[in-house]
Amino acid sequence: MIIANTIDTVKEKVREWKKSGYSIGLVPTMGYLHEGHASLIKRAVEENDKVIVSDFVNPIQFGANEDLATYPRDFVTDCRMCDELGTDLIFHPNPEEMYSDDFFSYVGVDTLSKGLCGKSRPTHFNGVCTVVTKLFNIAEADRAYFGEKDYQQLAIVRKMVSDLNYNIEIIGCPIIREKDGLAKSSRNTYLNQAERSAALILHKALTKGEEMVRSGEKSAKKVVATIKEIIESEPLAKIDYVELVDSEKLQPVETIEGPILTALAVYIGKTRLIDNFFVDSLA
Amino acid sequence: MIIANTIDTVKEKVREWKKSGYSIGLVPTMGYLHEGHASLIKRAVEENDKVIVSDFVNPIQFGANEDLATYPRDFVTDCRMCDELGTDLIFHPNPEEMYSDDFFSYVGVDTLSKGLCGKSRPTHFNGVCTVVTKLFNIAEADRAYFGEKDYQQLAIVRKMVSDLNYNIEIIGCPIIREKDGLAKSSRNTYLNQAERSAALILHKALTKGEEMVRSGEKSAKKVVATIKEIIESEPLAKIDYVELVDSEKLQPVETIEGPILTALAVYIGKTRLIDNFFVDSLA
Repeated sequence: MIIANTIDTVKEKVREWKKSGYSIGLVPTMGYLHEGHASLIKRAVEENDKVIVSDFVNPIQFGANEDLATYPRDFVTDCRMCDELGTDLIFHPNPEEMYSDDFFSYVGVDTLSKGLCGKSRPTHFNGVCTVVTKLFNIAEADRAYFGEKDYQQLAIVRKMVSDLNYNIEIIGCPIIREKDGLAKSSRNTYLNQAERSAALILHKALTKGEEMVRSGEKSAKKVVATIKEIIESEPLAKIDYVELVDSEKLQPVETIEGPILTALAVYIGKTRLIDNFFVDSLA
Repeated sequence: MIIANTIDTVKEKVREWKKSGYSIGLVPTMGYLHEGHASLIKRAVEENDKVIVSDFVNPIQFGANEDLATYPRDFVTDCRMCDELGTDLIFHPNPEEMYSDDFFSYVGVDTLSKGLCGKSRPTHFNGVCTVVTKLFNIAEADRAYFGEKDYQQLAIVRKMVSDLNYNIEIIGCPIIREKDGLAKSSRNTYLNQAERSAALILHKALTKGEEMVRSGEKSAKKVVATIKEIIESEPLAKIDYVELVDSEKLQPVETIEGPILTALAVYIGKTRLIDNFFVDSLA
């Protein structure tokens, strides 16, 4: 496995691979890889001749009061996992390599970025779209893999690719959970023992919400109220949002009809966790 | 020459050309082609195996009170010129092909877009960057050609390509002028006979400004004042801006030292014309 720290190293390798006619899969990550990331990498390895994993804590997607400085990092362990899974190249630039002092460009997607996580993180998705654009141009991949845990991110990246005519297929992969149901996240490492137990309330509440939707509940308000009630029963939990939205524009719905996403963000202590469920078609 | 109205037609052809190992040159235009465009196309034909000219009046780069509706169009003549010059494909989509009803994405470059034309056209360069991004992704060109008349546009596109790691070389081509000095522009067609004569004041004023700079004048203020004075001597002219800026970040300079751009926008009657001169190194 090649470890590349510079954009030029990646571009050179990509040019070589392209010349040989190889297909390329890209898995953009912020490192501290867990089984969620592993599932993306495995799928990328299955579907492409060459696989690039980017391992970069992207500063511009963090707000001023967020956890950029403390975001967990373990590049040695990441490398081991990537290598074992069959990654061909891991791209691990420092922030200066990605953003010069006079970096002025930005990419964004309106409407889809306003609600859900965008409300409390107003600059987040511009940061995501900008780094993803850079990675797409650097890796020139045929396919890129994103987890469905960050469903809003996935929807925004899909929209960006469609609007701006990128030549890349976006593949969303299912949420991977701990045995007790907590969605895998690098941020789970922030949780102490009491918080780790308290965090189970997210999955518990969503499971109840999903049951309601699948049993034919049509009122989004009722589903949201039930989910909120369950989460509020946990003293360590503080809700950022719980919302039911349509799956395309991510706008709140009143009546549950077409495909819907139910998404939430909840603080457990100081740690902000997200989770969701998606119901494609109703019985 | 292929005439393509859809994105898919272009992408299909590009895929075929790429497979054959052909290099591709792109000349993005808004049509109503004149000798300025012709000079870009000629250079593209010289330097690439295949040349794509896009011919599209991009609605999102026009402000609400600007001349989108009246912008001159003559696709038949454009096709003839492109064909004669050796263009391989002319891309002529309608606005709906480029922008769906729920088009939400945007690309922009801060700082460089704020001054000069950006002051009176605050959304213009976002519109330019967004359509250029789309064209880059559609044409997958090795090189793209832009005129130096729109110097700010050229600088912004260069910055966008560098910041976002596009795999394309941006080539700026010199301003082409009428025999009497007026910079070629599709918008010159708006001018009546009196205005056409009055418009000469732009080149006259810039020529005097350039003489001053090349003779060693160090005060930007003095150069700007002289240019303004000359233009204001023409009753049909109304200045939008006259500015001396550095050539990278396009920020106003006080003392003329490194490479500088002197740019202006002036209304002749209702027609807004731009022109500039660039001095790379001083004697």
